Amino acid sequence: MLNVVITDPPRADLAETGKLAEYGTATVHEAIGRRGYLGPSIRPVQQGTRISGTALTVLCWPGDNLMLHLAVDQAREGDIVVATTTSPSSDGLFGELIATSLAAREVAGLVMGAGVRDTAELREMGFPVWTASVSVQGTVKETAGAVNVPVTVGGQVIRPGDAIVADDDGVVCVPRLEVAAAVAASAARVAKEEAARRRLAAGDSSLDVHGLRAKLASLEYITAAEYARRSGEGLQGAGS
Amino acid sequence: MLNVVITDPPRADLAETGKLAEYGTATVHEAIGRRGYLGPSIRPVQQGTRISGTALTVLCWPGDNLMLHLAVDQAREGDIVVATTTSPSSDGLFGELIATSLAAREVAGLVMGAGVRDTAELREMGFPVWTASVSVQGTVKETAGAVNVPVTVGGQVIRPGDAIVADDDGVVCVPRLEVAAAVAASAARVAKEEAARRRLAAGDSSLDVHGLRAKLASLEYITAAEYARRSGEGLQGAGS
Amino acid sequence: MLNVVITDPPRADLAETGKLAEYGTATVHEAIGRRGYLGPSIRPVQQGTRISGTALTVLCWPGDNLMLHLAVDQAREGDIVVATTTSPSSDGLFGELIATSLAAREVAGLVMGAGVRDTAELREMGFPVWTASVSVQGTVKETAGAVNVPVTVGGQVIRPGDAIVADDDGVVCVPRLEVAAAVAASAARVAKEEAARRRLAAGDSSLDVHGLRAKLASLEYITAAEYARRSGEGLQGAGS
Amino acid sequence: MLNVVITDPPRADLAETGKLAEYGTATVHEAIGRRGYLGPSIRPVQQGTRISGTALTVLCWPGDNLMLHLAVDQAREGDIVVATTTSPSSDGLFGELIATSLAAREVAGLVMGAGVRDTAELREMGFPVWTASVSVQGTVKETAGAVNVPVTVGGQVIRPGDAIVADDDGVVCVPRLEVAAAVAASAARVAKEEAARRRLAAGDSSLDVHGLRAKLASLEYITAAEYARRSGEGLQGAGS
Amino acid sequence: MLNVVITDPPRADLAETGKLAEYGTATVHEAIGRRGYLGPSIRPVQQGTRISGTALTVLCWPGDNLMLHLAVDQAREGDIVVATTTSPSSDGLFGELIATSLAAREVAGLVMGAGVRDTAELREMGFPVWTASVSVQGTVKETAGAVNVPVTVGGQVIRPGDAIVADDDGVVCVPRLEVAAAVAASAARVAKEEAARRRLAAGDSSLDVHGLRAKLASLEYITAAEYARRSGEGLQGAGS
Amino acid sequence: MLNVVITDPPRADLAETGKLAEYGTATVHEAIGRRGYLGPSIRPVQQGTRISGTALTVLCWPGDNLMLHLAVDQAREGDIVVATTTSPSSDGLFGELIATSLAAREVAGLVMGAGVRDTAELREMGFPVWTASVSVQGTVKETAGAVNVPVTVGGQVIRPGDAIVADDDGVVCVPRLEVAAAVAASAARVAKEEAARRRLAAGDSSLDVHGLRAKLASLEYITAAEYARRSGEGLQGAGS
Repeated sequence: MLNVVITDPPRADLAETGKLAEYGTATVHEAIGRRGYLGPSIRPVQQGTRISGTALTVLCWPGDNLMLHLAVDQAREGDIVVATTTSPSSDGLFGELIATSLAAREVAGLVMGAGVRDTAELREMGFPVWTASVSVQGTVKETAGAVNVPVTVGGQVIRPGDAIVADDDGVVCVPRLEVAAAVAASAARVAKEEAARRRLAAGDSSLDVHGLRAKLASLEYITAAEYARRSGEGLQGAGS
Repeated sequence: MLNVVITDPPRADLAETGKLAEYGTATVHEAIGRRGYLGPSIRPVQQGTRISGTALTVLCWPGDNLMLHLAVDQAREGDIVVATTTSPSSDGLFGELIATSLAAREVAGLVMGAGVRDTAELREMGFPVWTASVSVQGTVKETAGAVNVPVTVGGQVIRPGDAIVADDDGVVCVPRLEVAAAVAASAARVAKEEAARRRLAAGDSSLDVHGLRAKLASLEYITAAEYARRSGEGLQGAGS
Repeated sequence: MLNVVITDPPRADLAETGKLAEYGTATVHEAIGRRGYLGPSIRPVQQGTRISGTALTVLCWPGDNLMLHLAVDQAREGDIVVATTTSPSSDGLFGELIATSLAAREVAGLVMGAGVRDTAELREMGFPVWTASVSVQGTVKETAGAVNVPVTVGGQVIRPGDAIVADDDGVVCVPRLEVAAAVAASAARVAKEEAARRRLAAGDSSLDVHGLRAKLASLEYITAAEYARRSGEGLQGAGS
Repeated sequence: MLNVVITDPPRADLAETGKLAEYGTATVHEAIGRRGYLGPSIRPVQQGTRISGTALTVLCWPGDNLMLHLAVDQAREGDIVVATTTSPSSDGLFGELIATSLAAREVAGLVMGAGVRDTAELREMGFPVWTASVSVQGTVKETAGAVNVPVTVGGQVIRPGDAIVADDDGVVCVPRLEVAAAVAASAARVAKEEAARRRLAAGDSSLDVHGLRAKLASLEYITAAEYARRSGEGLQGAGS
Repeated sequence: MLNVVITDPPRADLAETGKLAEYGTATVHEAIGRRGYLGPSIRPVQQGTRISGTALTVLCWPGDNLMLHLAVDQAREGDIVVATTTSPSSDGLFGELIATSLAAREVAGLVMGAGVRDTAELREMGFPVWTASVSVQGTVKETAGAVNVPVTVGGQVIRPGDAIVADDDGVVCVPRLEVAAAVAASAARVAKEEAARRRLAAGDSSLDVHGLRAKLASLEYITAAEYARRSGEGLQGAGS
Repeated sequence: MLNVVITDPPRADLAETGKLAEYGTATVHEAIGRRGYLGPSIRPVQQGTRISGTALTVLCWPGDNLMLHLAVDQAREGDIVVATTTSPSSDGLFGELIATSLAAREVAGLVMGAGVRDTAELREMGFPVWTASVSVQGTVKETAGAVNVPVTVGGQVIRPGDAIVADDDGVVCVPRLEVAAAVAASAARVAKEEAARRRLAAGDSSLDVHGLRAKLASLEYITAAEYARRSGEGLQGAGS
């Protein structure tokens, strides 16, 4: 639904949302049932940053960043702006000036389904950004879109107020009403993984630590000689 | 036009060209009317470098870097080599050895529409490169192309002697005769942005700073409850 | 051939294999006749690391990392795990936990034709990885594939026991029986390049250093004025 | 939500849904406010077919078509199966055998976010298919997904029972409760376009027919000579 | 240069331009020195059509087709509209209504660097189109671009009045002043190819017909047994 | 291994190879254990053709089709030429003239990992082609490659003399020594599928026909109301 600004979207609990950054995207994604990942095309422009916050969603027209300017006025502390375009675009809709505005309102970062620019300045000022493209291409400020309606980025629906967690691996969205459950499940997963990590570091078999041997019934362990006999090619090849 | 080397291409004024690096790609691109950007597929192999210079153009056959060797002899201090292939190729046409030659001639950097290799060495020696691909794939040195003819990279025509500015966001080309105007317009834009930045950092609305409120006439500000009523879905969703 | 684990694949000579890392991918690729490069889509998740080792190959079902767990048990010191899927997948099949297991067995690194996650943790623990994708997307552990059969990554066949060399430029595979020859040819190439580098740094022409002038017979050296006459456009253009 | 089959999803009104095929994707997409398009990567495997129906949604694991077999049992006359995978896959999850089953249940067609095969047979039997990939690659039938939960294809959320319209241009989804409104708006649009078409065919200006002249205030009409003067390049160029 | 309409661009000779369609894209491309091809991403929406005409160029804002409506008024008999966007877009900027207008003005076809829709109707009405995308996605009519300025599609600069030839293989642009030469060279090439075709159809060796044997000096003709000895793998392999 | 022509590669049994075309790519691919598929990027330029034959392999330099001319002399009746380049290229290496030569030698078709042109003429003369690209871009005939060495296309190794089967779905390679087994397994699969098809056409459940019910133990069948309760969103949504 275009041409609307929702002024009072409910937000995920901020205290719980803040805890997601302790766990990171891979853990949270697993904890909520392997859901919510925005896909490998949304990449960070900085390295080593992990944040979480509540989604302030922005839907722009391609080649037009008017709604990002409007979104600034709707921003609340702890938000992460999640912006995209009504059809695919790689243009640089976002740069250092809007980041300055958002930082002044204590917004935690940006997730962009189109493109951003001023990446050196963004790194310097410490405003974290995840984006589908880095592009110098400038935009107009002409056509209205929407703010705080559900948007789709990387095949995931993000609703305003959903929790966002982002790090070097990418971005995950946790539905607003599931954040507390996600935090609890993440904590449980981390505890379990810590035990596994100790065993694995000590050299225990990964198959034993994860109890996977039963799944290998169909496998045959054979020698290289047997393989050569069956496949007719052996392993001595020189490549092509 | 293949199989020619233009020996005396006119070059943009070097003093003016040098100033473009102070402004960077986004500012220069805006200053000349949102033109000249080589697109998001041309990426730097280093981080934090911003240069400008005059284009020394090179057109190679795919899988063949013969003309890059020839280009070395045509290089002048302050040039940036802009090389590409007659049809799409990702092969590593350029590496540390040719960079050594170019550095010895005070060439400022390379923009490559195909591929480069030796990226660790290039970073170590401080020779800046922007490229469409990083590729180990080696090439022959057999078929003649052209040097200092107009070439197309990322949908932009670059003529020998045009000014090139490149940084973490990508590469922009400024036509040779427009460089002084581009510098003046960039300076004006920076001054204007500095004023805007101060207001935005102080928390002024982006809509007011840029005078955008008139463009929002068609927008409706509605509550989440009203949105739920109209859309039939509300914002309480759990995601998919 | 699926559902087999080859338990005793012959390996390239470890001492010779270890020397490949001194030369790096570009030199080794050239030394063996411009072969063995896994292509520009396999990229490192860290910067400044160069390793070599013997391939431990893993073939997984898309969306399923069961065989990576099994591969841990087959790992030997000096191996590099080379894993891919039976059809294209970008999912995160590999992360910090399996890396912990492999590091405990002195495995040198991972080359992945699908995706990895936990990249921040992998960089922190110093386990080097080259991959086609970074992806948070989790996988099941259900369907058997194969370990130590020939696999294809980036258009190259990698057989278990082949030598792998990887650095910032990408990954190259050297057939098992050609490693000693590859080391010798790499050493010869480096010696030759060192001589060339000295001449090039001193400003000698690249055409003379590489003896290329004979190949330029078809080239014409013309003036910009002559080019303008022939092409009808000249070089004064303002761009588009 | 995985591992569930919703057995009684509400469906859009079948009579109204059937009318969408009379209008086609472009008209319906415009009629509902330029929404619902599944993007240019979902293409038909046949030419000249236009259908509409209600979505029976299927979520498969990559490389696994188990849930498509289950979906057959849930199929009702007038459904269009909309299937995709939990992470990106191009594998051929669907072919002539499942099509035979669906045709026997009067299903109108298939929309596939992964891949299909047997395209010659599908064309021959007249079962229409839109797909992201054509791929011979076979799949297992091992891991459970979900049937009739919301899925995302081409950046659009499709809920079971939503209306689908598909033709040579692609696929559009109309939310279940908006179908009657979409039909009415499509009819109105067609009537208006028919009037425009008559005027345009008679040679009337497109600017007048659509009332666009007011938007062209900023345009300058200039001669080629004036363009040459301003741009410094003219239009006489010979190309590169 | 945006926001201008050039009203009197010079056009290539129409009689000569018309002859290009007799030769087709491959022949004309070779005849002018392997130049002018708009690349493999511009594909026809119909099969078996070959046209030529003079370029009427249109530059639109992404997601906005306002300038296509204006272009109708500038169209002259024998033109081919060549349209693209200022930054990458796949949206459907063109459809059956604008085609009706262009057909009424005897325009020969459309080449589109963004997207088109109504492909079934376009085929039915016999209006030929080549395009980078087929997309249902609708556009606004808000922001001015330019008409009859040079544009870039597929890496080629097309100036208004240049000759365009298009067929099942794609699109080639011939600079305005080179059309007569291109026709003559195409005719010569066709004559030469006809002679070659007769010899080849009679079974003569392609190497003799094209005089290529001298270029094969470096080749060795070896037996499969010799290959097996040298490569260590032979040709008996079973594949992977 | 470059610069060699293997003159006497062993070929798969021609009578058995000929039978593969009766079964088509999907059946053969399944019959040999889901192997040998050249991937979704290799597409036919015609519709409705299914062929099989023995591979005559050709390795060209990018932008250079010299070896295709040489391959003509090595062609034998029943061969299918499988050609690719040493690094990625989309150029049109193959067209109607070489097809004329191959047809004169009773070659059955072409599989191309780079590009082809003259597609209208190829369809007209009935010479079937599968290719990664259609491209007008012409090539030189300068640099030697290899004929009848193993090549890689679409991630598959094809050795000279292997059997190739190709149809509307793509291309599958069967190792030379496995052809008779592939024919037998294909016949068995077709017989089994025919029985399944009859049951499915009669309306039997796909789950019963394939015996899949046991695999669905983890699935829950729930109502839409129960889904709404669990997910918090229901299925009434209006989409975004």
